[in-house]
Amino acid sequence: MKFTIKRAAFIHNLTDVQRAISSKTTIPILTGLKMELTQEGLTLIGSDADISIESFLSVEDDKIELQIDSTGSIVLPARFFSEIVKRLPEETMTVEVEDNFLTKITSGSSEFTINGLDANNYPRLPEIEDTNKLMLSADVLKQLISQTVIAVSNQESRPILTGVHMVIQNSELLAVATDSHRLSQRKIHLDIPTDVHYDIIIPGKSLTELSRTLTDGVDTVEMRIAENQVMFIVDHTSFYSRLLEGNYPDTERLIPTSSTTQIQFDAPVLLAAIERASLLSHESRNNVVKLTLSPADSTATIYGNSPDVGNVEESLHFEELSGEELEISFNPDYMKDALRSFGQATIDIAFTSALRPFTLMPSEDHEDFIQLITPVRTY
Amino acid sequence: MKFTIKRAAFIHNLTDVQRAISSKTTIPILTGLKMELTQEGLTLIGSDADISIESFLSVEDDKIELQIDSTGSIVLPARFFSEIVKRLPEETMTVEVEDNFLTKITSGSSEFTINGLDANNYPRLPEIEDTNKLMLSADVLKQLISQTVIAVSNQESRPILTGVHMVIQNSELLAVATDSHRLSQRKIHLDIPTDVHYDIIIPGKSLTELSRTLTDGVDTVEMRIAENQVMFIVDHTSFYSRLLEGNYPDTERLIPTSSTTQIQFDAPVLLAAIERASLLSHESRNNVVKLTLSPADSTATIYGNSPDVGNVEESLHFEELSGEELEISFNPDYMKDALRSFGQATIDIAFTSALRPFTLMPSEDHEDFIQLITPVRTY
Repeated sequence: MKFTIKRAAFIHNLTDVQRAISSKTTIPILTGLKMELTQEGLTLIGSDADISIESFLSVEDDKIELQIDSTGSIVLPARFFSEIVKRLPEETMTVEVEDNFLTKITSGSSEFTINGLDANNYPRLPEIEDTNKLMLSADVLKQLISQTVIAVSNQESRPILTGVHMVIQNSELLAVATDSHRLSQRKIHLDIPTDVHYDIIIPGKSLTELSRTLTDGVDTVEMRIAENQVMFIVDHTSFYSRLLEGNYPDTERLIPTSSTTQIQFDAPVLLAAIERASLLSHESRNNVVKLTLSPADSTATIYGNSPDVGNVEESLHFEELSGEELEISFNPDYMKDALRSFGQATIDIAFTSALRPFTLMPSEDHEDFIQLITPVRTY
Repeated sequence: MKFTIKRAAFIHNLTDVQRAISSKTTIPILTGLKMELTQEGLTLIGSDADISIESFLSVEDDKIELQIDSTGSIVLPARFFSEIVKRLPEETMTVEVEDNFLTKITSGSSEFTINGLDANNYPRLPEIEDTNKLMLSADVLKQLISQTVIAVSNQESRPILTGVHMVIQNSELLAVATDSHRLSQRKIHLDIPTDVHYDIIIPGKSLTELSRTLTDGVDTVEMRIAENQVMFIVDHTSFYSRLLEGNYPDTERLIPTSSTTQIQFDAPVLLAAIERASLLSHESRNNVVKLTLSPADSTATIYGNSPDVGNVEESLHFEELSGEELEISFNPDYMKDALRSFGQATIDIAFTSALRPFTLMPSEDHEDFIQLITPVRTY
């Protein structure tokens, strides 16, 4: 195997593939980068067993200046090889595999020789057919991911809750995540036949990594679903993730359908006040802030308290307030995550009682996005 | 004590003072920020016992909008207070000390109450007279610090070597640091009488912190020296550091005066090659690279090697090479630090033998700056 390539193009694809490569893996060969060279081009592969990323550099892409002398494959130590490639002196580099998987990397007057591994020992990627593919807008997918992964559990005690539940039916994709303290649900419309049906659970970590590959230049993402794998194709890069097995809890019944107190806020204004209040609650053993709503006096007040450090009290600026008097306590960090996911929007918060979950929705498009937070009992 | 102030101005000075405040101190009151309010203005003080920083906000500075209702002093938890101040909603804030050192901080509709401490229990800053003051250019001082602190020892086994030795005499300041493996010496001219004489050792950590306060807008620094303290005054901020006690070793005799092999490099070009070679030496137990100079063949080659990972060899681009053949090994990290301190300059490296220290000097102004690196015996 021997090729010459433009370093900048190689580094671009390598950076994507490296997202899947962990130095902490228990399978030593997975700390490596697999390179596979055919007459069509060079494929880079990285994997941590949960996520795999494959990226293709085509011989037909003039910008890459890929020159193939002999085909073959090799696995090189990923972190180390990437540091070398980034520091080479010239615009192009040549990689040549010699006997015993020894690999020579040359650029200008610099010549590295490093020990590679037999690519035949590298695990094979799953094959996923393209019979059932969905096309998604990259922007919408990225937003959906950021809005749901916040509510994913990071406790391994209930593994199923570490994923985002995605149900595709009636030309809609419904994504839900909950860690049992809060829930986030986002709905998007898809241009697909109404009889296409899927019910899958994708690990939250996989979606977070996928989201990082959706950079500004990307318009469309192709999604393919198989028995226990999902695959996303972005330009010349394929992103594989395993699916979580099991039944996701029925979350539909958790979302309240009526309320007794309603308030409307500008999300960034409320976020800033919650951030201030949480400065004190973070110094306290139980990280809780208290919200008092009085529609009769038209006041909303937030309190934070730490016996050691002090306390904070703030009258909140709101848009509208109606319904019954209420005093409710909650974890401000859940509230901060929820508020950040609304961006600059105006939101409606609806309460039923001090001990029942309350909902946050954008004032426009109530249907498409809802967040649920369970309050904390303080007495 | 009660005052109202523009938050942005307060935060600016607070940031400077916070450099001296450590949360790891063994003296609890030093985790606090001391504020002292007189009719002239507000003084902020932070200290970790080694370094103290004092910053003054004058009532006469219109931009600060300082309004004094009653004078006094207080110590507040520094990190926590600073987070509050940064997150307050309005442009100004009011700070008021009530009974039992309880302190109220208000801005808009937000009101914090935090527990303060009695300022009488805060250690006093040393008083340093202004009889012997030196004026230094901020840019030159900053460069001198960055060029010498790299060679300061971080081993507490010989505390004296954790400082930079500064000798002022004959209208010159000579600054030297060495960790016994390498040495850096910088000389600058001062516009002072030739009979002004000082011999002090300033902790390297103090100089590094001082350097961070020398931002782009600063032109001149006033330096005052006392028995066991040094003070630097930058605008309205005073920076105090204790001095190290003891005799600094005689470093003059360590610097070779003749050489047998001489080579001239463009510093950034050599730096890039050393960085590549160190990728491999870092993977090895003994972090060493080998340099071979052959004036007869007009070649200079660098080698790095790690038994586990591989090796690197690179022909170096140099400007001039003369003298005897040489093969020498050294720690590439010392070389990288030294080369970075020369910036974009062309440098002369002079060797005497494979086991004797070699010197690096800028090709222009040999006199003012010299670095010394001790080679490593590899056989």
